[in-house]
Amino acid sequence: MERTYIKDIKKNTGQKILLSGFVQTLRKQGGIAFLILRDVTGTVQTVIIKSNTDAFATIQDLSLESVVTLVGESKENSQAPNGIEVLVETVEVLSKAEPELPIPVDEKGESETNLDTRLDWRYLDLRKERNALIFKVWTLMDQVFVDTMTDKGFIQIHSPKLMNTASESGAEVFEVNYFDRKAYLSQSPQFYKQMAMAAGFEKVFEIGPVFRADPSFTSRHATEFTGYDLEVSFIKDHHEVMDIEESIIVAITSKVNAVYGKEIKAVFNREVPIPTSPFPRITFAEVKEILKGKGIKSEKPADLTGDEEKGISQYVLEKYGHEFVFITDYPIEGRPFYHMRYADKPDTTMSFDLLWNGLEVTTGAQREHRYDILKNQATEKGLTDATIGDYLNFFRYGCPPHGGLGAGPSRFIMKMLGIDNIREATYLYRGVKRLTP
Amino acid sequence: MERTYIKDIKKNTGQKILLSGFVQTLRKQGGIAFLILRDVTGTVQTVIIKSNTDAFATIQDLSLESVVTLVGESKENSQAPNGIEVLVETVEVLSKAEPELPIPVDEKGESETNLDTRLDWRYLDLRKERNALIFKVWTLMDQVFVDTMTDKGFIQIHSPKLMNTASESGAEVFEVNYFDRKAYLSQSPQFYKQMAMAAGFEKVFEIGPVFRADPSFTSRHATEFTGYDLEVSFIKDHHEVMDIEESIIVAITSKVNAVYGKEIKAVFNREVPIPTSPFPRITFAEVKEILKGKGIKSEKPADLTGDEEKGISQYVLEKYGHEFVFITDYPIEGRPFYHMRYADKPDTTMSFDLLWNGLEVTTGAQREHRYDILKNQATEKGLTDATIGDYLNFFRYGCPPHGGLGAGPSRFIMKMLGIDNIREATYLYRGVKRLTP
Repeated sequence: MERTYIKDIKKNTGQKILLSGFVQTLRKQGGIAFLILRDVTGTVQTVIIKSNTDAFATIQDLSLESVVTLVGESKENSQAPNGIEVLVETVEVLSKAEPELPIPVDEKGESETNLDTRLDWRYLDLRKERNALIFKVWTLMDQVFVDTMTDKGFIQIHSPKLMNTASESGAEVFEVNYFDRKAYLSQSPQFYKQMAMAAGFEKVFEIGPVFRADPSFTSRHATEFTGYDLEVSFIKDHHEVMDIEESIIVAITSKVNAVYGKEIKAVFNREVPIPTSPFPRITFAEVKEILKGKGIKSEKPADLTGDEEKGISQYVLEKYGHEFVFITDYPIEGRPFYHMRYADKPDTTMSFDLLWNGLEVTTGAQREHRYDILKNQATEKGLTDATIGDYLNFFRYGCPPHGGLGAGPSRFIMKMLGIDNIREATYLYRGVKRLTP
Repeated sequence: MERTYIKDIKKNTGQKILLSGFVQTLRKQGGIAFLILRDVTGTVQTVIIKSNTDAFATIQDLSLESVVTLVGESKENSQAPNGIEVLVETVEVLSKAEPELPIPVDEKGESETNLDTRLDWRYLDLRKERNALIFKVWTLMDQVFVDTMTDKGFIQIHSPKLMNTASESGAEVFEVNYFDRKAYLSQSPQFYKQMAMAAGFEKVFEIGPVFRADPSFTSRHATEFTGYDLEVSFIKDHHEVMDIEESIIVAITSKVNAVYGKEIKAVFNREVPIPTSPFPRITFAEVKEILKGKGIKSEKPADLTGDEEKGISQYVLEKYGHEFVFITDYPIEGRPFYHMRYADKPDTTMSFDLLWNGLEVTTGAQREHRYDILKNQATEKGLTDATIGDYLNFFRYGCPPHGGLGAGPSRFIMKMLGIDNIREATYLYRGVKRLTP
């Protein structure tokens, strides 16, 4: 007998169906038992009556969250949740749960359980509709990203995560014992996606893990997370890269809204915004001026603090009704050596960050592709041939002008759904103190 | 002026166009110069005449593989390659290559250069049409995989690559210095995709890097490579997993054939096969019998050698005209502890490998989801709670029956295009002696 998903029961009213899933609740009232069954598509009330002796006996000592297969008849019942219930004929227990659950597996229990304990029992935590929905949305977001990029003619690369030298600055990099030597975990595909430009691939993207030995414990950092990266040749300037990102974000939010908008509204009480293009773009210098006018003190001359990012996003939301803002043209002190600088403003980079409701979700720039200038800029930042010689080589035998960006899809998810902590927007969070499960 | 891709020039005959790309060849004959320009879509002959003094002066000392932008008029010319050439008006040099290339950047030079030197200069090696095509095909394969899985309702996970303990056996695992302790690089998403089954995700897939501290130097191994993984709940047996893989491979080969079939034929002299379903399925025991009959000696009682894999593939190709064969039901000695065993044949696992023209491209199985049995099987293989306790926990509070597979897309590419060495089917190969560039 073919399995029916719970979401499809209504189409099969009055028929005998086979369901499989987890026992969410089990309530006995004299000669009748109500079992709420949950699969990946939803929940349904099922009914086992005492006269069905085998089935009734089976569920007597059935623990919550056990996995069962039920066969029964689906019936309309206006008293049941969603107006439908299943009168059970047979019950087969596929996997019996231990009787005492370490954390509650229901939405109500969510707020009562400490996040760290929830992460210890992540697989139980992910059984909640709310948490599974996060990864359904993420799956759709990935697909839209892959389809958008591939359809635009981008080549997908899978760049190595094991490197001979620390990728960018040498700071916050994990060291690996690699046979008789050391290797380092990639902090971003930056160098290798630029290599693809030197290879003439012209447009590339990558979805992959990035590693940061960042000893911070904030709600928006992790030591390992998924990155979306892209790089494009023959651009005029960094604004072209921003144009591409706008089209990606519009595609993602539109599709997520169309497919999961209702569920997201019901579960997260959040309307997924489909932003209008172009997004507001404000230079770093202007941002500092605006914040000064609002009484927010500048603490870092070449960067923005979290408070400043929130402040400027608040300003943009009020002034333009827009959740997104590109901050452009950062001072060179706050940017890596490979960001291109304006010919007529050598202390300013052709760079940008994208903020979404106060959170930085992307960093991008036009890159310096001219070998001599790039080498000078590297030297100026204290980098030598010994560490970045292989990278500098990419620019010796012809390299098109190019630019690109690195974005954090877990932060997209946070902002799209209104989740405060990156630990919840990550399948399995990794931090200074967390390498398990 | 908008840029025209070289593949689109024919649509713009007689018009003034702007082209950008690499200088592939440059031949001067008295008052006329022929420059073959290459972009990611192809090559075209361009002509610079002496009376165009600025342009002619610019190209005098232009080194091969420099990057230029040309403006000129496209014209039909039956003598030119593809019947079209561009009469150049202006030349702008965007990036000048050093004059002596370390390796030749043409197909002819391919066979003359040692592979190791080519990998040292991988970005120049990738400029060849043949090598760029590999990654265009790979991009399409990735997209088909993502679309097929997502459209079937699979959830994409991004499981962590940093783990607290060595993932499966403790052998061939890379150790990472993780703040004040050790972490290990994931050898496969095995445990975490099974966790998704315990989380009730039911169907998941992942594309991501896997790491193997494998000290071998063969043409089919790497220390880091991309994996395709999937896992499915509520299966009847491992044959259901094979059915899914067949549908994926048919989808990939069909799409690759439709989009790149002609190019692959021209460049690799290979017809991409679209295999018929079902693929032949032969048990391990039968394979040993067949090989015995062919005089191929069994060297490993619980596994197949490379020669045996080639032998059985040859047999299947001759007998069924099929490039693929599933070998099923391996003895328990050759399989990990988490493979389910037949109730009535406790020394045989419900497992399979997929061979494509003699190369193992996938390993899969139904998994043991019953906690007590799983724990016994782990103990039998010498594994303890200390190393796999977190994993065993996944099975304590209800876990559906499930199975899945791990496949190597770089090996798919090798077999699809007829490439002998995994180093060429990988964007940047990583091996015992290679961490650069």
